[in-house]
Amino acid sequence: MHIFYLFIFSLLLAAASEGLVQDFCVADLSLPPGPAGYPCKKPASVTEDDFFYHGLATPGSTKNIIGAGVTTAFDAQLPGVNGLGVSIARADLAVGGVVPLHSHPAATELVLVIEGMLTVGFISSFENKVYMKTLNKGDIMVLPQGLLHFAINSGNTTAQVFASFSSQNPGLQITAFALFMNDFPTELVAKTTFLDAEQIKKLKGLLGGTN
Amino acid sequence: MHIFYLFIFSLLLAAASEGLVQDFCVADLSLPPGPAGYPCKKPASVTEDDFFYHGLATPGSTKNIIGAGVTTAFDAQLPGVNGLGVSIARADLAVGGVVPLHSHPAATELVLVIEGMLTVGFISSFENKVYMKTLNKGDIMVLPQGLLHFAINSGNTTAQVFASFSSQNPGLQITAFALFMNDFPTELVAKTTFLDAEQIKKLKGLLGGTN
Amino acid sequence: MHIFYLFIFSLLLAAASEGLVQDFCVADLSLPPGPAGYPCKKPASVTEDDFFYHGLATPGSTKNIIGAGVTTAFDAQLPGVNGLGVSIARADLAVGGVVPLHSHPAATELVLVIEGMLTVGFISSFENKVYMKTLNKGDIMVLPQGLLHFAINSGNTTAQVFASFSSQNPGLQITAFALFMNDFPTELVAKTTFLDAEQIKKLKGLLGGTN
Amino acid sequence: MHIFYLFIFSLLLAAASEGLVQDFCVADLSLPPGPAGYPCKKPASVTEDDFFYHGLATPGSTKNIIGAGVTTAFDAQLPGVNGLGVSIARADLAVGGVVPLHSHPAATELVLVIEGMLTVGFISSFENKVYMKTLNKGDIMVLPQGLLHFAINSGNTTAQVFASFSSQNPGLQITAFALFMNDFPTELVAKTTFLDAEQIKKLKGLLGGTN
Amino acid sequence: MHIFYLFIFSLLLAAASEGLVQDFCVADLSLPPGPAGYPCKKPASVTEDDFFYHGLATPGSTKNIIGAGVTTAFDAQLPGVNGLGVSIARADLAVGGVVPLHSHPAATELVLVIEGMLTVGFISSFENKVYMKTLNKGDIMVLPQGLLHFAINSGNTTAQVFASFSSQNPGLQITAFALFMNDFPTELVAKTTFLDAEQIKKLKGLLGGTN
Amino acid sequence: MHIFYLFIFSLLLAAASEGLVQDFCVADLSLPPGPAGYPCKKPASVTEDDFFYHGLATPGSTKNIIGAGVTTAFDAQLPGVNGLGVSIARADLAVGGVVPLHSHPAATELVLVIEGMLTVGFISSFENKVYMKTLNKGDIMVLPQGLLHFAINSGNTTAQVFASFSSQNPGLQITAFALFMNDFPTELVAKTTFLDAEQIKKLKGLLGGTN
Repeated sequence: MHIFYLFIFSLLLAAASEGLVQDFCVADLSLPPGPAGYPCKKPASVTEDDFFYHGLATPGSTKNIIGAGVTTAFDAQLPGVNGLGVSIARADLAVGGVVPLHSHPAATELVLVIEGMLTVGFISSFENKVYMKTLNKGDIMVLPQGLLHFAINSGNTTAQVFASFSSQNPGLQITAFALFMNDFPTELVAKTTFLDAEQIKKLKGLLGGTN
Repeated sequence: MHIFYLFIFSLLLAAASEGLVQDFCVADLSLPPGPAGYPCKKPASVTEDDFFYHGLATPGSTKNIIGAGVTTAFDAQLPGVNGLGVSIARADLAVGGVVPLHSHPAATELVLVIEGMLTVGFISSFENKVYMKTLNKGDIMVLPQGLLHFAINSGNTTAQVFASFSSQNPGLQITAFALFMNDFPTELVAKTTFLDAEQIKKLKGLLGGTN
Repeated sequence: MHIFYLFIFSLLLAAASEGLVQDFCVADLSLPPGPAGYPCKKPASVTEDDFFYHGLATPGSTKNIIGAGVTTAFDAQLPGVNGLGVSIARADLAVGGVVPLHSHPAATELVLVIEGMLTVGFISSFENKVYMKTLNKGDIMVLPQGLLHFAINSGNTTAQVFASFSSQNPGLQITAFALFMNDFPTELVAKTTFLDAEQIKKLKGLLGGTN
Repeated sequence: MHIFYLFIFSLLLAAASEGLVQDFCVADLSLPPGPAGYPCKKPASVTEDDFFYHGLATPGSTKNIIGAGVTTAFDAQLPGVNGLGVSIARADLAVGGVVPLHSHPAATELVLVIEGMLTVGFISSFENKVYMKTLNKGDIMVLPQGLLHFAINSGNTTAQVFASFSSQNPGLQITAFALFMNDFPTELVAKTTFLDAEQIKKLKGLLGGTN
Repeated sequence: MHIFYLFIFSLLLAAASEGLVQDFCVADLSLPPGPAGYPCKKPASVTEDDFFYHGLATPGSTKNIIGAGVTTAFDAQLPGVNGLGVSIARADLAVGGVVPLHSHPAATELVLVIEGMLTVGFISSFENKVYMKTLNKGDIMVLPQGLLHFAINSGNTTAQVFASFSSQNPGLQITAFALFMNDFPTELVAKTTFLDAEQIKKLKGLLGGTN
Repeated sequence: MHIFYLFIFSLLLAAASEGLVQDFCVADLSLPPGPAGYPCKKPASVTEDDFFYHGLATPGSTKNIIGAGVTTAFDAQLPGVNGLGVSIARADLAVGGVVPLHSHPAATELVLVIEGMLTVGFISSFENKVYMKTLNKGDIMVLPQGLLHFAINSGNTTAQVFASFSSQNPGLQITAFALFMNDFPTELVAKTTFLDAEQIKKLKGLLGGTN
């Protein structure tokens, strides 16, 4: 037995002495990230809780203008996904609730309906074609990377949805927020979107934009 | 208006004339795949159904030796995920049901519990450490790429789980099947796993292996 | 000398007999592409013209509603870029001309001004912040992957711009076209963008959309 | 000559002033790694020894229970491979020696026999098929990423093998160690592998596991 | 309105509290880079100037032995390209000026002629075939990754060229500098290139090499 | 038992019916490759011989001008490496034999000495610095992607070396062949390398070049 452990130790020694963990790279959120993600926590301080998250168990509040609440489990909430190319979010939609038109600059999304009925669609960039389906419980739909998409609760009950992503941090650019929730000058919004200045100002008012 | 359309057409013409679709590459399952996935279907024949799948809406049967049923939505079932680095599967587990120890050679998994209570764990390769948690409804857990993991229904009710993957085709190597459900000679299994020949023969008998 | 050539031939033979070209993979546009690009043309039929393109030498017409013309050199026009992660386009803008708000789902863009003065900006998804600069001849600006951006000729002369991309086929999703140049129902556009139905219908009329 | 050097300096100045090294990124093992590897050592402190390793010149001891010794040259031993997607290891096997069934979660392996005769095999996940060959001096075999594989000295002499990997740190999950060399509860091992409790306890005893 | 902002804040809070920016990763050049690039600057200190560069607006001096001046906008000059796989450089060539034979170990190059006439060529590794074209204003040519290439001003006027790259830091290995501008022993240069010692010594003299 | 097999079959059915193989993608060399490699052979026709190669067991002939013979196991010889990012080659060098200065455009190399003594070196692009070591039996050295390197038998006996690569098809650009073994006009070689026309013509004569 003795020499057997010697074998095992020799096998692992070099790695151990450097504190290497090739199996995963749990995000050390206290350090600045790089293009590939966060630096790894020291293996000795990694626990199962780094790979676990309870925060999606509770529905997000839908008492807001869009009738929808979104909760994310990206690298900041679930540091175990760092470097692994996957994450997840939950959306709850009241009757008539909407997840506004948006894109994820860095990820494909896979929508899964847990409860209710949703109309989900995305728009191709090639032909501006709308690919749209009504999803019921257990249905899934893929929303290819970077393309505009949306979801609407088209049923009579609250809807619950989970969205998986092909990135640890997919990004989220909501079109209306990008246009109206900042200081993007009305004249430039108008020129680059064909919208009327009046419409733009109205929505800047609604969403807190200026200029 | 006329010249405006000329602009639009000139913008899209080159692409259109070649049938390019940069937005997605829906798998043409009739052609042989390559290392990056399947060749793309012609854009004109792509519909919203290529991005949609209903097959996960029904629970898999759990009336089998492990008390668990697994249904997949990989590229073969959902050709819209081709090249996009994401897919999903559903597992239903009867009380006491088990998803046996296995690994996915090509993907990280993210487990989401929809119903019931599960004990989910993975084993690191570095220290053979078991990272294990009990998950309830709405809880998630990450299982890093290539590492052995398992799930057991540790509650009193049927459990329903969805597993997202960071690949369109994650692969699935069940340890017991790899050892006992083929013609891997008993002597070699014994030498390479330390198991007793008697144990190996018993499980080959159970799982249909030979030699 | 004789045996020396034997050496060279032995070195290259295996590759040659299979027609391998590891140096490049010029797109065979007659075959269906896959997620990583087009199949490669046979080496024997590759010429320097596969790596060369003259089509950007002529300005695109700016006699249209936006006062801008765009010409692309993506894989369809320049098959030598296949698999190499780079491509380029040219835009010409009349005085007051605009490249409307858009994103490239699959690429970062690097803008280079050759003539004139442009105001170029992109909007972050994180805070909806507008990063905007006025560029003159010789100035460059990076527009990170997947984010909304635009360019306006803010000078008194015609502007000429080249845009490099980190992909052989970056995609192009123009926000106004995605919203108004298809059959996306007015009611859904309204719900998912906060725009008024009246505004939507007006722009659908302008851009040829229906519903 | 003078102005020529000015040219050279202008060419390199920007890079030099920032200490950039685009040619390689030798691991600074004193800093925490990230998903893509270690931060780079400052160029000025890099020497040829960062790219060189003598540690594989000596055979690993085979005086242990498996009759095999393994020595690695991963990033921790050979910091010059950092970020470059390659590494190597040496295995020496006494007569009858065994490299137990294992997988590399993050790499494909390419086995090269230097001395002796080995039986090498891997198991597919798709059909649990065993792909097995007997290798002699100079023979090579590929073992695809993430799949279970093994090697046995099936000759009459000591065997010497080198294994190249497609990663700077391939990971190593030995099935028997994952099952029996930790506190993985016997009951769970049994349930997830079909093994008998008695067999599990015996091997936990042998390999130092508990529970 | 109040609850609406609550929605927005809840959406962004987790990210914000960690200072995440998934949209871009502007290089913090004060920290050591890793294989994927530099750590990201804190979002709060990022401005539009991180994405902008004026340094290519001025021609590089061509008053040197090769009659050419090169100016780069890689990550060190344009930190906004960090992690985004794109960069650019400008070359100015006097009449008869030359960009000597070189390769970029880490990038494909796309040449764009702005002024003048250039002969541009690359050499395949497979058959040592020279792919060469004469480019005029507005012409482009692709130079595949890692292959030797060159440019010569073959016209009667100064030439101006921009080169886009598929990397934030493409590297640049000039063959003559690699051979003659260092302490590479003449005897070894001779043996590994077939050049005569006399020729080598002459060029070492010209370029400042020793040994 | 019966229902258990039902489980297994249901698990694998979808994949099987499409002929999916996620575990590997053995090259079908009869079809044109793409940027990511060759299309996959049908699983049913894959055998262990696709992963095995005997061709490196015999030394390459060293009876040639450089006293060295190289044999490769790239995708064309070993179709099992397709898509897996690894390959290998063997070099035999007579006393005084040389592997001429060259680069691999698409791979890092890891040299392993099996017999004899070699001087191995590479040249950085950043500072044209030569990193050079003398390697003996069992020593290894890394040669980073795309950089010029060479090997010389600096001992008194034949040398045997294996080189692992981080690509299934690394490419090989020998500097002297790129310059002198084609129709690259002497005048252009001279201008782009600083070599004298006389020297160039002499080597074109030796290596079979023209012009």
